[in-house]
Amino acid sequence: MPDEPSLNPLLAVTHQAMSEVNKVILDRLQSNVSLIPQLAGHLIAAGGKRLRPMLCIAASMVSSQNNKQPPNAALYLAASVEFIHNATLLHDDVIDSSDQRRGKQTANALWGNEASVLVGDFLFARAFELMVETNDIWILEKLSVAAAQITEGEIKQMSMLGQPDSAISDYFSVIEGKTGVLFAAAAQTGSKVGNGDSDLCNAFYDYGLALGNAFQIMDDALDYGASERQIGKDLGDDFSEMKITLPIILAWQDSSDTERDFWERTFRIGNQRDGDFEQAKEIINKYSCIERSLDFATSEVQKASNAISVIPNSILKDALIEAAEFAGLRNS
Amino acid sequence: MPDEPSLNPLLAVTHQAMSEVNKVILDRLQSNVSLIPQLAGHLIAAGGKRLRPMLCIAASMVSSQNNKQPPNAALYLAASVEFIHNATLLHDDVIDSSDQRRGKQTANALWGNEASVLVGDFLFARAFELMVETNDIWILEKLSVAAAQITEGEIKQMSMLGQPDSAISDYFSVIEGKTGVLFAAAAQTGSKVGNGDSDLCNAFYDYGLALGNAFQIMDDALDYGASERQIGKDLGDDFSEMKITLPIILAWQDSSDTERDFWERTFRIGNQRDGDFEQAKEIINKYSCIERSLDFATSEVQKASNAISVIPNSILKDALIEAAEFAGLRNS
Repeated sequence: MPDEPSLNPLLAVTHQAMSEVNKVILDRLQSNVSLIPQLAGHLIAAGGKRLRPMLCIAASMVSSQNNKQPPNAALYLAASVEFIHNATLLHDDVIDSSDQRRGKQTANALWGNEASVLVGDFLFARAFELMVETNDIWILEKLSVAAAQITEGEIKQMSMLGQPDSAISDYFSVIEGKTGVLFAAAAQTGSKVGNGDSDLCNAFYDYGLALGNAFQIMDDALDYGASERQIGKDLGDDFSEMKITLPIILAWQDSSDTERDFWERTFRIGNQRDGDFEQAKEIINKYSCIERSLDFATSEVQKASNAISVIPNSILKDALIEAAEFAGLRNS
Repeated sequence: MPDEPSLNPLLAVTHQAMSEVNKVILDRLQSNVSLIPQLAGHLIAAGGKRLRPMLCIAASMVSSQNNKQPPNAALYLAASVEFIHNATLLHDDVIDSSDQRRGKQTANALWGNEASVLVGDFLFARAFELMVETNDIWILEKLSVAAAQITEGEIKQMSMLGQPDSAISDYFSVIEGKTGVLFAAAAQTGSKVGNGDSDLCNAFYDYGLALGNAFQIMDDALDYGASERQIGKDLGDDFSEMKITLPIILAWQDSSDTERDFWERTFRIGNQRDGDFEQAKEIINKYSCIERSLDFATSEVQKASNAISVIPNSILKDALIEAAEFAGLRNS
């Protein structure tokens, strides 16, 4: 078996541009209202992988004549995408009342709900200001549609809470919305600012969508212990929040009547006791639901690779394909 | 003294266009996720004055060759502005934990914080989708800047909570942000889609800003009983939330040491008891702080009228001037 796929090749090819993107991000966090950079800086300093802006940058480099550095508009666009992502994280913190994200205390726990809502709104507004600087209304169209779809995905997820008999297709509609479409739009609009033609922009959209889906499927599988490694968020969060994810849907489908009683109690009724999370994992493992989740992720990775098979071979292309493999196989 | 100024002339001249705007609003609330129209519809059905879209429509009609009906782009723009306004209301409900708005139960009390945050985000995203349909990136620039300023105003207001010794200039910076700039951008961009030149767009910006400021100053004065009439929100909300508004700043400035102890206890320390609201109103009345607030509002109304003095006389112009007078004198 070859080395585990990693983000390192993508990090290497986008490294120089990403340091410019980081400057734009820090610059646009500034405000006369000092609480804003304090709070948003706390979140953005926590880091994360910056995968969305990296894909945006890489897509712009692949699509432009000059593969060595992205057009300036790509820097604004990449920062914009990261702002949208961070706005949704801030608003998720309100929603989930989670105390930890990426192993750090959440902004919400430190500053309260009001500040998280408002600073999220600020980042969202700034994201649109940054998009305007690309001077391309097509890009604003694609990203405003994506932004609406993100919230539709989150709201649909909320409306599915506690319903283990949900359909797999509903799960996919949730993850495409809440995760897939922002990856998709990041890559698609990145290609556009690099002067990619309509076919290439579409190819990057499909690539980003499938990669984002794989990423989210893995995230949801990891929450039931797909990996033994520490992942900076508490295992079992989805379980205690009664969030319906792929392992639960698959487990429900195969469960006996007694096991379904367990899911009914823990999810639909929301009556959870000590040891329930362990029992949930037992049923999930009994029916190989993690492995089968990983199969779904692998299939998305394949779609991502296929989508960009049309572009000529290059270090950038290899890095993008490995990034998709990483998203579907990561254990952290 | 002439009849009290009213919104009726503005309602009359924009009536036909506003029924088109309402269709756009209802149409764009649709989503495959049924909770969205349910929740947002609840808020939007509650109505309100629709003052922002009306100003947008009127400005576009004044600025275009054809005064009888606004260009189609104005309908999308007006709906967009109303969506932004409603998004901020939904997020305010989270922030203030208020149970009532416009005399109805808030969406938040009915559906919970999560839904308010997410549906607010949805409206915000849809607002940008609607703006894109004007096909004018200048408009997206102005409204994305306004959206960021709104949140800056709200965050500044939050950071001033409990500080009665705040400066009047800080109060103005808060109300310009949270209220003035959206009125300003609504009128300014309305003028732009009506092909108003740069001077006219600027005039409408100044008009909207001053009108919005007057509107907010009145709102804040009404909360301490500027009028005896029922205003569909609980009197004293600002007091119990320790929100720093103009009557409080003016009262603090004139207060004796004993009175300042009262403000310190009720605002900075936040220790409020039965009868405190009545005592606050007594001190406020002792130093004529409501009347002096109304003077500030009147001065803004004058600025609004002056700003559009350049445009030729017409029924529309008269309606706009009376709308500004209404904003600064309204008692409901």
